[in-house]
Amino acid sequence: MSAPADLSTELPASEYDDRLKAVRERLAETDADAAGWFGATSIGYLTGFGHIQTERPAMLAVTEETVAITVPRLERERIADNDHIDRVHTYFDYPQGRPIETIAGMLSELDVTTVLADGEGAPGVMGYEGPPLTEYVDVDTQSWVDRMRWAKSDAEIDLIRESARWGNLAHRYLADETEPGTHPATVSQRASLRASRAILDTLGDRYVATVRGDGPAHAGFISGPQTRLPHGHTANRRLEQGDVLITGASANVDGYFSELERTMFVGEVSDEDEHYFELMLEAQRIAIEEMGPGVELAAVDDAVWSYFEEQGITDLAQHHVGHNIGMGAHEPPYIDRGWGTHCEERDSRDAADAVMEPGHVYTIEPGIYTDNAGYRHSDTVAVTEDGTEQLTYFPRNLEANVIR
Amino acid sequence: MSAPADLSTELPASEYDDRLKAVRERLAETDADAAGWFGATSIGYLTGFGHIQTERPAMLAVTEETVAITVPRLERERIADNDHIDRVHTYFDYPQGRPIETIAGMLSELDVTTVLADGEGAPGVMGYEGPPLTEYVDVDTQSWVDRMRWAKSDAEIDLIRESARWGNLAHRYLADETEPGTHPATVSQRASLRASRAILDTLGDRYVATVRGDGPAHAGFISGPQTRLPHGHTANRRLEQGDVLITGASANVDGYFSELERTMFVGEVSDEDEHYFELMLEAQRIAIEEMGPGVELAAVDDAVWSYFEEQGITDLAQHHVGHNIGMGAHEPPYIDRGWGTHCEERDSRDAADAVMEPGHVYTIEPGIYTDNAGYRHSDTVAVTEDGTEQLTYFPRNLEANVIR
Repeated sequence: MSAPADLSTELPASEYDDRLKAVRERLAETDADAAGWFGATSIGYLTGFGHIQTERPAMLAVTEETVAITVPRLERERIADNDHIDRVHTYFDYPQGRPIETIAGMLSELDVTTVLADGEGAPGVMGYEGPPLTEYVDVDTQSWVDRMRWAKSDAEIDLIRESARWGNLAHRYLADETEPGTHPATVSQRASLRASRAILDTLGDRYVATVRGDGPAHAGFISGPQTRLPHGHTANRRLEQGDVLITGASANVDGYFSELERTMFVGEVSDEDEHYFELMLEAQRIAIEEMGPGVELAAVDDAVWSYFEEQGITDLAQHHVGHNIGMGAHEPPYIDRGWGTHCEERDSRDAADAVMEPGHVYTIEPGIYTDNAGYRHSDTVAVTEDGTEQLTYFPRNLEANVIR
Repeated sequence: MSAPADLSTELPASEYDDRLKAVRERLAETDADAAGWFGATSIGYLTGFGHIQTERPAMLAVTEETVAITVPRLERERIADNDHIDRVHTYFDYPQGRPIETIAGMLSELDVTTVLADGEGAPGVMGYEGPPLTEYVDVDTQSWVDRMRWAKSDAEIDLIRESARWGNLAHRYLADETEPGTHPATVSQRASLRASRAILDTLGDRYVATVRGDGPAHAGFISGPQTRLPHGHTANRRLEQGDVLITGASANVDGYFSELERTMFVGEVSDEDEHYFELMLEAQRIAIEEMGPGVELAAVDDAVWSYFEEQGITDLAQHHVGHNIGMGAHEPPYIDRGWGTHCEERDSRDAADAVMEPGHVYTIEPGIYTDNAGYRHSDTVAVTEDGTEQLTYFPRNLEANVIR
């Protein structure tokens, strides 16, 4: 008996085969002997091998025939069950194990003299310092995986949709736990606990654990004066009647994320709150309506900016409309008025990079920030062949976002 | 009425003055007009301005006279209360706002033609791509702050000590919540919630909130077969009698962290478990005893390795003994047999870099990993003028780590 077809909680193994095939096709068009990646997210994207990037470098090398990896000793056993990696090289630890020399040895065994890598050496994470790989082989740089990640496959969108479903439940619990006198950190932790339990009780062993020391769902908010800052802190201040909240909820589904944010009110909504809430809601509606395949990203940001100009509130905007999302919290491309110009200025990009394509998944989150509070919803919206699909679905109207 | 003197929950403002003075003294020894930092942690270290590093670059510039910063528009208000930053430049957003041009404009206003920075341009975080700063001014690189962070001041150690105190309580709650049949994610979330509440109830508004969407304390563990991997995942599998756990608990105190890990057993301890536990405990004891001011870091790792050789278990080791800790989870220097050689090979370092100094704070965590389970405690130990101070204090012996 197999699992119901609508349960999408793990990326199919064929996705990794497709991704490796795609990079090999690009490699075949070059004179290089191998393509390589130091970045943990790119390595995970291509092989399903997930690890925490620390001061201990790792490098994946893909040749026409072979997928090889160099990792610190402490990651070796985790690769044993990985079907997408053919050879594993390890060094004991950093600095004693000389990671770059080990990587050079791996490339030498693969007869690689030229590699197209995502950097000229390992990134300086957590204090890592070592010689560049260029001291051993010819390195040119590429950012193929970063670019591939812009458009998600149907299977990836299934995971983001599943994330949105659990993010919605976490958000429901967050609203339920919120009342005057409660502490934001506690409300967040209670909601995250309940939603995480619901995921684990519902999916059982279908849920793929990819994190360390934490539950699969998170919900929380910034409150009161902190909402004036788009990246405010969770205030150490109990909730009061009339507080504005900007919430956030998501769930990790095999390493993919959605984003759901709501502007909510504790009990009372002032006239000023209602005024700015409705302006924000209309800006978000305009942005979502403007989206679609073939639409310039800049046009979506422009549409919101024109609306802000019309309303005379451009001075209350602090950021662009949104960003792509998937394995990372923020991913390019960005819904930004400068995106088209940015693409023209990057030699490696063509005009197609300036437009939305099927498979792109965007957060839509125009915000308005006054001296008293901030107002921002964020929804996760996929671009489809003929339009868009809104993946997050918590009610957006004012009435549904007042906590009584 | 002022707070009791023993409450150390916020770094004194004078620390930032001292740090800025120290970098200005180094700057005065050079021909450069300014020192600059793109890294969020370094900017926070020098000024107390904390922000989330995203695709939107920031840069702090320190001249003889002035401390200036370039940030995205959405960070402007947060800097308003900062006493250590004299001038703020903003760009609207990335890419439309042209961050590097804004930074170049800031440097030009300061009459800077040569800057010593922590990189030649902003780091490629979350998809940021832009021209290097070298297109506008002469840039040489320095890593002064990274090096300054090796040795903590008394005030910093006070915060790490406070973190260890709350990490200990979180760990106590973690042990209390653990029993056969419970889910690791749920145990973790319950303990984190209880400990966070205890911190907030005890410290009240003395607790400085520096994070977003989360509580101040965290505790969790990896369990069963995942303990074979030093960086294992939180397993999606309920606890069983006889499971080995490797725990972890910490608390955020004004951005500083401690590390406490224990090998624990659910109910039963097999003879094999007891055997390896005692070997691990002795290895940790040897490491702590070896530590002290003026001691070579490599010597501490060597002492453990010699013990492993003596016991014939070097094949069960997967990593070195530990690392420095403070604002980051892992910080250099590392307690690693190769550290001395590494220092000799780095031109910028002298022999003093190879030894432990007063103010260094280390995790001591030699581990043993068999085909069945892993065994590792981690304690946070400060090097003092005449010895060491163990900051974490949860009992280390076997009896205290069996959950009945």
